[in-house]
Amino acid sequence: MAVYTEVSDEELDAFLAQYDLGAVRALKGIAEGVENSNYLLQTETGRYILTLYEKRTRAEDLPFFLGLMDHLAAKGIACPTPIHARDGLALRHLAGRPAALVSFLDGISPKRITAGHCAAVGAALAGLHRAGADFASHRPNALSVAGWRPLFESARPRADEVLTGLAADIDSELARLEADWPQNLPAGVIHADLFPDNVFFLGDSVSGLIDFYFACTDFLAYDIAVCLNAWCFEPDLAFNATKARQLIGGYQRVRPLGAQELAALPLLARGAAMRFLLTRLYDWLNTPAGALVKRKDPLEYWKRLRFHRGLSSPAAYGVA
Amino acid sequence: MAVYTEVSDEELDAFLAQYDLGAVRALKGIAEGVENSNYLLQTETGRYILTLYEKRTRAEDLPFFLGLMDHLAAKGIACPTPIHARDGLALRHLAGRPAALVSFLDGISPKRITAGHCAAVGAALAGLHRAGADFASHRPNALSVAGWRPLFESARPRADEVLTGLAADIDSELARLEADWPQNLPAGVIHADLFPDNVFFLGDSVSGLIDFYFACTDFLAYDIAVCLNAWCFEPDLAFNATKARQLIGGYQRVRPLGAQELAALPLLARGAAMRFLLTRLYDWLNTPAGALVKRKDPLEYWKRLRFHRGLSSPAAYGVA
Repeated sequence: MAVYTEVSDEELDAFLAQYDLGAVRALKGIAEGVENSNYLLQTETGRYILTLYEKRTRAEDLPFFLGLMDHLAAKGIACPTPIHARDGLALRHLAGRPAALVSFLDGISPKRITAGHCAAVGAALAGLHRAGADFASHRPNALSVAGWRPLFESARPRADEVLTGLAADIDSELARLEADWPQNLPAGVIHADLFPDNVFFLGDSVSGLIDFYFACTDFLAYDIAVCLNAWCFEPDLAFNATKARQLIGGYQRVRPLGAQELAALPLLARGAAMRFLLTRLYDWLNTPAGALVKRKDPLEYWKRLRFHRGLSSPAAYGVA
Repeated sequence: MAVYTEVSDEELDAFLAQYDLGAVRALKGIAEGVENSNYLLQTETGRYILTLYEKRTRAEDLPFFLGLMDHLAAKGIACPTPIHARDGLALRHLAGRPAALVSFLDGISPKRITAGHCAAVGAALAGLHRAGADFASHRPNALSVAGWRPLFESARPRADEVLTGLAADIDSELARLEADWPQNLPAGVIHADLFPDNVFFLGDSVSGLIDFYFACTDFLAYDIAVCLNAWCFEPDLAFNATKARQLIGGYQRVRPLGAQELAALPLLARGAAMRFLLTRLYDWLNTPAGALVKRKDPLEYWKRLRFHRGLSSPAAYGVA
């Protein structure tokens, strides 16, 4: 949950005067996303999400994110569509922060993940990759293999507060990932954070993909690796191979994977687990007591990482 | 902001199967109220607020609150209307908690209070009092004069952590309030917590009064006293007599106050300030570090109390 910034009446009125959306009917701070402040805005013309970008979202990246949503929405992907003001601009300022309005998407994030959800999200992810193939902008993935060691170094001195020996374990694991990371897989725009919180369903169908604020240019199969971590472990962290098979199967019905991509999946999944381990570890060690954000246990991703590390082939994901 | 309880897909489906509201389109945790978990629920038939009552709202009081909202809504007061399920009941259970659905009200809580807001809220409060006059149920005000000393005793040992001498000051102030508290003012159903957060406006008009979970039976003028504290001090805690005059004037255009009620206002306002001082003090001393709720400074109400205590008549409120 996250509403960090309050918007005054005058600020909101001045902001909306730049659009053709009619008068405000309601504005509710909503528990969506963890990085930014989000409001559900109802006007005479419809429902919108108003996002105020807080400091962890870099302002210089916002044109990429909003341009990507424009591009994907134009291709029919069920993602938030940036609302452009009368001057044509979607990225503005409100309450001292960069801010944007996007379309509201119906749907609910699933709480209890089924294999059916996994098949649907796999297909939706492949659709996103196909729709993004001709998106012209690039944004390097700051949270891929090259970014992990600097992140680790900032957490290393206190990593063993979380688990004795964790610093040394991460150190050696990072060395392996850095040595073995693939070089030449098909790349393009990826979502990079497609957790269940960021996928809406209406019944069994995906009705929305949201939160593109980690989107970047990277191996397409890395997005699948993120999803294997995010969708295919049970609450007790048991790996559910049926869900993985459905997820990858759903993906391949829309965009078949090459042999190199399939073979790389276990390593990519280790890397994806490392990425969430490291950001959670950093947050764990740097969230002040009394903060309004609930800390998430980094070790959940260490356990996921060890599962993927134990695989010699993608067969454990149900891939032939 | 407050979303304490998550609702699973199955629980939501089972809950909604008891109503005739159509299929779910969206469910968003919203930052509204501080005691309970609130969701904005969109179904095929409209928008609703789903409230899960957390432990600070006593389950045995819920029929009073929901019955009052039913009563007021039927009289045309712009308050949430409880939605009754097919079996006729509005109070149900969800995710292990008492829960209810109410109608969604358009409007925005004002952030910067104007004298016009104060006049409108005064009139709305008087309308609420008139509409509640024939509400048959009673609920004593547990947070009126008889309840303050027990609350204070639980906070007394640590009160001086907040301000040196605060315990002794509250002790003597309580003695005065207990001795002088009025006995025979006109009484009825009051809101008891009509802060700006709980009033929605569309333009200059009140479009909704919400959060009836402190409503009770008490002196009607005590509700005005709460509003004098909640609406008529500037952010620097300077008292704005124009706002007070507008608030009381707006009230009297709908329900004229008797001479006894007017004369009692400064004392009632001291009492209302004491009520919020004590609950904030209690929360300040008992909110664990790391809690997801932001603590509010109790001393703001000590300062308000001292302002009211300095008055010899209601003239300072702009009342002739």
